[in-house]
Amino acid sequence: KNLLTMTLLPSFVTHAAKRIAQGSLHSSLRPLSSLTDPSMLRYWGKGNLQNAIPIQREARIVSLSDPNDDANSALNYGALPEGAHLLAIGTKFDEFDIRTLQEQEPNVLFVSHPLARKPLVQLLDALPTVEWVHTRSAGIDFVTSPGLSASKVYVTNARGQFSSTLAEYCMMACSYFAKSLPRLIQQKQDRNWGKYDVLELRGATLGVVGYGDIGRACAKLAHVYGMKVVALRRHPDLCVDDPLCDKVLPSTTEALNELMSESDYILVSAPLTDDTRGLIGPTQFAHAKDQAVFINLGRGPVVDEDALIAALKSGKLKGAALDVFTEEPLPVESELWDLDNVLISPHNMDQTATFMHEATEFFVNENLPRFVRKEELLNHVDKVAGY
Amino acid sequence: KNLLTMTLLPSFVTHAAKRIAQGSLHSSLRPLSSLTDPSMLRYWGKGNLQNAIPIQREARIVSLSDPNDDANSALNYGALPEGAHLLAIGTKFDEFDIRTLQEQEPNVLFVSHPLARKPLVQLLDALPTVEWVHTRSAGIDFVTSPGLSASKVYVTNARGQFSSTLAEYCMMACSYFAKSLPRLIQQKQDRNWGKYDVLELRGATLGVVGYGDIGRACAKLAHVYGMKVVALRRHPDLCVDDPLCDKVLPSTTEALNELMSESDYILVSAPLTDDTRGLIGPTQFAHAKDQAVFINLGRGPVVDEDALIAALKSGKLKGAALDVFTEEPLPVESELWDLDNVLISPHNMDQTATFMHEATEFFVNENLPRFVRKEELLNHVDKVAGY
Repeated sequence: KNLLTMTLLPSFVTHAAKRIAQGSLHSSLRPLSSLTDPSMLRYWGKGNLQNAIPIQREARIVSLSDPNDDANSALNYGALPEGAHLLAIGTKFDEFDIRTLQEQEPNVLFVSHPLARKPLVQLLDALPTVEWVHTRSAGIDFVTSPGLSASKVYVTNARGQFSSTLAEYCMMACSYFAKSLPRLIQQKQDRNWGKYDVLELRGATLGVVGYGDIGRACAKLAHVYGMKVVALRRHPDLCVDDPLCDKVLPSTTEALNELMSESDYILVSAPLTDDTRGLIGPTQFAHAKDQAVFINLGRGPVVDEDALIAALKSGKLKGAALDVFTEEPLPVESELWDLDNVLISPHNMDQTATFMHEATEFFVNENLPRFVRKEELLNHVDKVAGY
Repeated sequence: KNLLTMTLLPSFVTHAAKRIAQGSLHSSLRPLSSLTDPSMLRYWGKGNLQNAIPIQREARIVSLSDPNDDANSALNYGALPEGAHLLAIGTKFDEFDIRTLQEQEPNVLFVSHPLARKPLVQLLDALPTVEWVHTRSAGIDFVTSPGLSASKVYVTNARGQFSSTLAEYCMMACSYFAKSLPRLIQQKQDRNWGKYDVLELRGATLGVVGYGDIGRACAKLAHVYGMKVVALRRHPDLCVDDPLCDKVLPSTTEALNELMSESDYILVSAPLTDDTRGLIGPTQFAHAKDQAVFINLGRGPVVDEDALIAALKSGKLKGAALDVFTEEPLPVESELWDLDNVLISPHNMDQTATFMHEATEFFVNENLPRFVRKEELLNHVDKVAGY
């Protein structure tokens, strides 16, 4: 059994008691201003720990993850912040010694396993002391369920961690088509010095379907390129006066079609929820501006892949850059492999050598210290809405 | 003969005399603040004309250009601003009726022909009334000469017009290597869903050799990507407190080698002058950071191409993205065509469908109105330094 059990360290208790006795305990919240643009931080929380605020409670953590996942080393073997303790690790419910755990009263559940949906709900049922669930990913579609929705836990995720590198991909995808990169590569093979006109991104319109953390990171870059940004989000009131957006639309069918018709580059960065599954279908592609470029870096099933293929084959779309697909790995028989005007990446455009490590470090170095100090946790997720 | 001669329109003289009589003449200069970031303007000067300031002198223009160059239509056939007149167009000295021109006292020379060096000096000799030379390009290496340097004319160019789209190319070139675009394309051909780690640009260092208008446009984008920017320029004092630069170096050999050793991405955006020819040679590549990416979008001869090829073949450099070459078109026998780690474009990465038109429109709609109103001309060039 991959089970790891730790007990509270007496030194922690002693240290905390000493601080409390010294009268240094206070509860003021640290302002968030330094984190208003978290995508610019390489390592979350480095230098943000304010030890002046003493711990207010312990974090007793159960990790629903593969104990051999090296990217969780900061949690499994690293130095946890003062007040935080890892009780157990496992990938399935029956790998945990529930009786012992119940006695230890775990209050934090860390999730980084793709098959976590069912064991997560089982653990929450068995461990009613859990207050907080943190997922190491940005998308939480792999853990959402009626069971999670019905629970009272507070859910956070790792959004922001992946936004900046996905925004780099978004701009590369735009330029890939604007500068005709495949043509450059072909001409090089042919030793052909053939000048041709390129398109500018400056002045073109980027439509962002799903203006969350990733969409905003893309808009930040597109804006400085001089692109117009049209954003569609479920809560348009959240970006009133957003300096990055030229237009913010609500997530209605009419607004979506309006975005499709106005955008030279259509970026899908929406989470996968019941509302967004198949959101971009034949009607939406019919509304698209002729020769638009389509980019999906959110979740594959948000797009009707058959409708996308039809729009690519008909010439309605100039091309597509896709990092996510309805079925992953993309089946070898998919027509997408054959289409010349499609750039395919194997859902790795946010996969840096360190990104999973950093996502774990965000939990360990940023949100855990906040939890033990009873500060506001970052990256709250609406577990019913799914993002 | 391709010669076009026009005479002064009496209506202009009358109109100016009327305004002067009305006492509306004044000489205050318009502030330049709205143009501090010209790369963001699609069409220079649109909306900038301040007709409140009346004309102060005529612009009598000779155009050293191909009369069939459609991109000069704003000058040749468009509506010139009040007070400006085109006297003649030609590509060679003996195409011009010098005697007639001398009588017309031309004071402006517009240059947009690649073989302009010699006829330009001949025209300046024959037409001593010329005060101002404007080149439609950003680089002026095709017109510099001892004869031009010795003349007393004021030289301006079209810099800024090309900066924004070249900056788009610069970031695409960085991402091409960071995300291993050739690998994506190969994997697609092989229907291979092979995940691999990508690099982030965030946190990497962009070294900019030649921090002029183009270099700064690139730095503006790189900065918002979260890259560190190290700039080398002849007058580092001109970017004290530049918020885009993490470090500004003087253009010494030591500083250049320092930049090479610190940069993950090395961008050459220097003009071609006597001082910059062969600036990046074997010693510089020896100092380069291992696996650096090399980008040249300025002028080919600034780089010792043999040394570049050696650094690419040895594995010292990860790759190169080149839009300019020592000899253009790049000869079919060049080894660069064969190197897998080179992205080649035929000096067209600033060639939008409209860029030459816009460059002419800048002259017609922005600098000509400034000339006739005796306002400060934009884009002054040091004709001795060559940029």
